[in-house]
Amino acid sequence: MALNVRKFSVPEIFFGRGSLKYAGLCAKRLGAEKIFLVSDAGLEKSGWVDKVFQFLEEEKLDCFYFSDVVANPRDFQVQEGARLYREERCDVVMGLGGGSPMDAAKGIALVASNGGTVHDYEGANRIQRPLPPMVFIPSTGGSGSDVSQFTIVNDVSRRVKMSIISRTLVPNISIIDPTLLTTKSRSLIIAAAIDAMAHAVESYVSLLASPFTEIHSLKAIELIMTHLPVAAETRAIDALENLCIASTSAGMAFSNASLGMDHALAHSLGGMLDAVHGLIHPVLLPHVMRYNLPACREKIAKIGEIVLGRRLGSDDETALAGIEKMAEYFEDLHISTRLRDIVPDPSTLPRLCRMASHDSCLLTNPRTAGWEDMLQLCKEAW
Amino acid sequence: MALNVRKFSVPEIFFGRGSLKYAGLCAKRLGAEKIFLVSDAGLEKSGWVDKVFQFLEEEKLDCFYFSDVVANPRDFQVQEGARLYREERCDVVMGLGGGSPMDAAKGIALVASNGGTVHDYEGANRIQRPLPPMVFIPSTGGSGSDVSQFTIVNDVSRRVKMSIISRTLVPNISIIDPTLLTTKSRSLIIAAAIDAMAHAVESYVSLLASPFTEIHSLKAIELIMTHLPVAAETRAIDALENLCIASTSAGMAFSNASLGMDHALAHSLGGMLDAVHGLIHPVLLPHVMRYNLPACREKIAKIGEIVLGRRLGSDDETALAGIEKMAEYFEDLHISTRLRDIVPDPSTLPRLCRMASHDSCLLTNPRTAGWEDMLQLCKEAW
Repeated sequence: MALNVRKFSVPEIFFGRGSLKYAGLCAKRLGAEKIFLVSDAGLEKSGWVDKVFQFLEEEKLDCFYFSDVVANPRDFQVQEGARLYREERCDVVMGLGGGSPMDAAKGIALVASNGGTVHDYEGANRIQRPLPPMVFIPSTGGSGSDVSQFTIVNDVSRRVKMSIISRTLVPNISIIDPTLLTTKSRSLIIAAAIDAMAHAVESYVSLLASPFTEIHSLKAIELIMTHLPVAAETRAIDALENLCIASTSAGMAFSNASLGMDHALAHSLGGMLDAVHGLIHPVLLPHVMRYNLPACREKIAKIGEIVLGRRLGSDDETALAGIEKMAEYFEDLHISTRLRDIVPDPSTLPRLCRMASHDSCLLTNPRTAGWEDMLQLCKEAW
Repeated sequence: MALNVRKFSVPEIFFGRGSLKYAGLCAKRLGAEKIFLVSDAGLEKSGWVDKVFQFLEEEKLDCFYFSDVVANPRDFQVQEGARLYREERCDVVMGLGGGSPMDAAKGIALVASNGGTVHDYEGANRIQRPLPPMVFIPSTGGSGSDVSQFTIVNDVSRRVKMSIISRTLVPNISIIDPTLLTTKSRSLIIAAAIDAMAHAVESYVSLLASPFTEIHSLKAIELIMTHLPVAAETRAIDALENLCIASTSAGMAFSNASLGMDHALAHSLGGMLDAVHGLIHPVLLPHVMRYNLPACREKIAKIGEIVLGRRLGSDDETALAGIEKMAEYFEDLHISTRLRDIVPDPSTLPRLCRMASHDSCLLTNPRTAGWEDMLQLCKEAW
């Protein structure tokens, strides 16, 4: 594809409080008779899985329920899901939850339709055959998996989080109901929103950014800066709804513009140490922005302008003050901003950075980086 | 659908100079063997139809070519196209051109797959069966038909432009290549860009606007204000590319948020008098914005802020000055801004406004308007 041609692809979106009730209708419109529903224990406990069962029943749809999914979902869980999807003769995949159930659901849809193992598809554009229709319902304002062409699955034996990227991984329909966030803990809301912030920042400066992704990136940054503190404190539905808008916008942006070095490193950390994905960005993102500054000064100044609410004298001043302010913002949320809290033993850092240097996300980072550059950055962040 | 649930649906987009060359590949990906290509004499003369033939041949795709299309495309042209589509056993519809060939192509895809006549589907959500895959290639930065769920077809016997609105009218793929605009005349570039401006303004204040449409509306207004004068003067490719971005953004916005009174009246004028669609808005839009002001003061002030490049003292001042400035902007393009140039005989105005009061676009106008309100407005604009 010529370098100056940009692609933009997003699912059909149903957005709003109460939109969950369209789960059955949406699946039916895609031809569903028996749905393979992927979710997890947390969503069961908060009652959302039962709600979905009810909406599927109202449309007289059969359902096979699969909940053998953990954070940083595992390759063997995906394989088992795909086996069951075929055995149960399902025809639509529905994902309900945060990034983990949704990414697992995508992996299952992929393997069930394309065969082999999920490892066969690691990297970009390696999926040949169409996937079954997918309806996704995010329960956290963060991962963006419901709108993106990404799925991230943990290769347990290599301890690597594999990035699988393909247009066919964009779900057909995303149902985004902000009321689902009301049952989430403060820490989950924060981790998810910060993941969306990292999506927004990295997609904005990505080498693949386009006019169609940039406005979504900037909107997401603005909304998260304003509404996350309120949402974390009060869980007010207005603030949560704004985080959902931000997460969806950031998802549209990174799905089409891809990400950068922060996510390359975050995938390594998730694979090697099973770290909570959303809590890695406060540690790394400001450092990555500083590293990228020489390659995209104007763009980081634009981010700074949003973070600060105004421009300072020069691009450089605005950019640097913006990065500082974002780091303070993370600290004010009372989450760790030092890498040592995630990587207790710094001697693992070189291996971690070598792994990150093979991640697809690094290809679109605005400034070239070898594993030694990343090691230097990690040492500063430690 | 609950009032607080918003839908957002856009095609997959290929954007950039030279992206036309993916025409064959895109059709093939959708399973094409024989393409029904709709275009017109203008596109033939400028050589783009031959280019498309060539790109289809390179992918060894058959093609049936249909060019019996005029501005404000007619119902009988759509019926004849649908007959030929079936007779020739085509499997993908490709539209190449401005709004007229693209809207005709959508009507053909609709009737070929759903039967009956195009009149059966007038209004919103009346299409039951799926349409054949559609690949659209806009040649003007304006209509947004390549991304929208609208098609507008002229009912010749009633002299009415029918609005047909359905999610299934969103093409599968839109290929947006700004180099196609380089062969357009100054007046076509202006008419198309002003159509996009009207899409942006009306979708922004629409009752169905959402956070996902609003940012696209505002971006389009900003880009057209900045780049249309340059594009009209110099036809520089950078300026034309920015008009394409604006047109696509405005298309994403109005497709999902719908339009308002300006377009309701414009459809009446097109149906009754065969007026050039893009040249109606400079006449009506400022008046419609003034009429709508009490219902959406903040939003029209936001538009004013973009048009003026700054805020004045109050919302009201900013909004009114913005409307004035936009009217001046139209005058500076040396196009008529008086309704008498389109409707020579004012005694036709009552019939025109009664027709407009049945147009679907009026349902989302932010301020209620009966046909007498529109008549009053038309008299002021005359």
